[in-house]
Amino acid sequence: MYKILTKDGRAKRARLETVHGVIETPVFMNVGTAAAIKGAVATSDLEQIGTQVELSNTYHLHVRPGDETVKKLGGLHKFMSWDKPILTDSGGFQVFSLAGLRKIKEEGVYFNSHVDGRKIFMGPEESMRIQSNLASTIAMAFDECAPAKAEREYIQNSVERTTRWLARCKAEMERLNGLPDTINRHQLLFGINQGGTLEDIRIRHADIISEMDLDGYAVGGLAVGETHEEMYRILDVTVPHLPEDKPTYLMGVGTPANILEAVERGVDFFDCVYPTRNGRHGHVYTDHGKMNLFNAKYELDDRPIEEGCGCPVCRRYSRAYIRHLLKAKEMLGMRFCVLHNLYFYNTMMKEIREAIEEHRFAEYKKEKLGRMSRPEMEKGE
Amino acid sequence: MYKILTKDGRAKRARLETVHGVIETPVFMNVGTAAAIKGAVATSDLEQIGTQVELSNTYHLHVRPGDETVKKLGGLHKFMSWDKPILTDSGGFQVFSLAGLRKIKEEGVYFNSHVDGRKIFMGPEESMRIQSNLASTIAMAFDECAPAKAEREYIQNSVERTTRWLARCKAEMERLNGLPDTINRHQLLFGINQGGTLEDIRIRHADIISEMDLDGYAVGGLAVGETHEEMYRILDVTVPHLPEDKPTYLMGVGTPANILEAVERGVDFFDCVYPTRNGRHGHVYTDHGKMNLFNAKYELDDRPIEEGCGCPVCRRYSRAYIRHLLKAKEMLGMRFCVLHNLYFYNTMMKEIREAIEEHRFAEYKKEKLGRMSRPEMEKGE
Ligand SMILES: [Zn+2]
Ligand SMILES: [Zn+2]
Repeated sequence: MYKILTKDGRAKRARLETVHGVIETPVFMNVGTAAAIKGAVATSDLEQIGTQVELSNTYHLHVRPGDETVKKLGGLHKFMSWDKPILTDSGGFQVFSLAGLRKIKEEGVYFNSHVDGRKIFMGPEESMRIQSNLASTIAMAFDECAPAKAEREYIQNSVERTTRWLARCKAEMERLNGLPDTINRHQLLFGINQGGTLEDIRIRHADIISEMDLDGYAVGGLAVGETHEEMYRILDVTVPHLPEDKPTYLMGVGTPANILEAVERGVDFFDCVYPTRNGRHGHVYTDHGKMNLFNAKYELDDRPIEEGCGCPVCRRYSRAYIRHLLKAKEMLGMRFCVLHNLYFYNTMMKEIREAIEEHRFAEYKKEKLGRMSRPEMEKGE
Repeated sequence: MYKILTKDGRAKRARLETVHGVIETPVFMNVGTAAAIKGAVATSDLEQIGTQVELSNTYHLHVRPGDETVKKLGGLHKFMSWDKPILTDSGGFQVFSLAGLRKIKEEGVYFNSHVDGRKIFMGPEESMRIQSNLASTIAMAFDECAPAKAEREYIQNSVERTTRWLARCKAEMERLNGLPDTINRHQLLFGINQGGTLEDIRIRHADIISEMDLDGYAVGGLAVGETHEEMYRILDVTVPHLPEDKPTYLMGVGTPANILEAVERGVDFFDCVYPTRNGRHGHVYTDHGKMNLFNAKYELDDRPIEEGCGCPVCRRYSRAYIRHLLKAKEMLGMRFCVLHNLYFYNTMMKEIREAIEEHRFAEYKKEKLGRMSRPEMEKGE
């Protein structure tokens, strides 16, 4: 299913075959939280900008429209009209960051919906059942993403519980994949490594879950407030303890620079809201740094966002027009910026794949970072 | 330039040749007030839904980004990347409905911008210069749209001033079209008939402006609060006093039923914000009445908005998905509804043209109204 095609240092160029088609890695998954990319971007648009994997959110879809509803409608692929791979996150991160009044128990988490306040319980089995109803290509294990500033003892206990939850996720997923009315009986399950910025806990947890023969392994709980250097250090020590012959996914990361650094450390799956969120604020990525299209200097600029960019926006519309749309609060301005940004990310991943294939990833990374080195580029958001 | 191909009763099937291509009438112009269709619809989308003419707003574009800016960027066609015809309204209607603190004088109107409150003067010459800078295909004359409930004397004086303004518009447009740096030196000018619901004033004004040899004639000041019956009555008495061998444009109208009634009375140009505004509220037009996609009954409805509809939305997405998007406040839901609605209007106009060609317009109209006869359809908005 997962095959490494080339290695260049620690960087992996691989291929994951799924029931919904092949994923060429390193890959950036395009985030469509509530079964839609924010900014009025349709799945028909995604087909124009090189998107390989769409990522939707278990918690959001459980709350609205409800995973049972999505199942009755034939699963997420049919619901949103997208026939390529979809990854669903487990809902854990959102339960711990969005929902109100949480109570964490061994069986799972009791919390209140952020939409209507109703009480919800979610544990490993519930998360698997929801994701099985959604029928995504890849399901994520239900974990606790411990607070960034948690004490060592809290993190230790949390990680141990997350390990027990992972075993329950795996058993439940196997059961669900065996049921006759399950939509996607080949649903894959990725486990999640936790441990905050504590190296020894990270490593020990990575060693334990590596034994559990999952379809892929994610590093979670990063990009939650620690410095980039701490994040890179954790990757340096943790990734070598995850199976190399399985996909390696760094959750919720990040800036182009973060991605380049993580690819160098062996990561090959990414997702992040930056390109969509920044696009909605008129901030666009280019090979020469990030631009704020609200800036008055673009008023008479009839060039595309980025000269030479092959995205559907740059092939046709000017900075001056997009700036006008943003200033006039026309939604179309946001849509254009989001489309360009996703194309930028997807294209960077393609460049990364080619660079690894040609054993020049280090060179490519240096060159790309040099070009994008304007200070605001590094600030990410 | 304008040629009647067929008549069926009073209904005209005609063709207007312009420097930006041919307009087949009856036509519904798609409203993009600030050089964009609201609801994140791009000009590349308009090409997929049968749009013939885009309509933009002189007042809005003068205020932002400024018509001088648009001129420097090569005119509205280049600015928004749309190579088919564009009609700009004169700004008159917006000056009288949107702007603050107006003072109407013989020379024109002094008012405050609704964006930043700055003082602006606009008279016939200014409106023509702005529209010449925008370089639309068809410019509208600058007129006063008198308040719906105005006294007879007020309307009489207003209409007389509008006639004097029209002569000034025509002279200024001829001058502008003769200047070497004018972008579109073939810009057309349509005059506007006014007179509220007073038949004699309407008729006399129509007779006077008909002598002025304009490129087309609009009936303005309707759909501003009078009943549909009053509107149809005014069309019945006024349109016969406008030149039949010129385009006849009913401004700001209306529901599908309004359009069918007006076509029957010899009108062949239309524009209205209903399909876009209704779409943004999840209200969609179908041959079987209007639907509110927020309605719970669509939760599990996997059919398209309208079965058999060839629009890019119905060919791919379900009512259930669109309802979810609307409920989740995803902009994509609005975009889908606006796209379908514009396609519905554009397609109805195509059906109307075919029906006139085949001398069965009365039959078509009866059938179409019968199918759409659910009460909410007639309420328009
Ligand atoms: Zn681009
Ligand atoms: Zn449709």
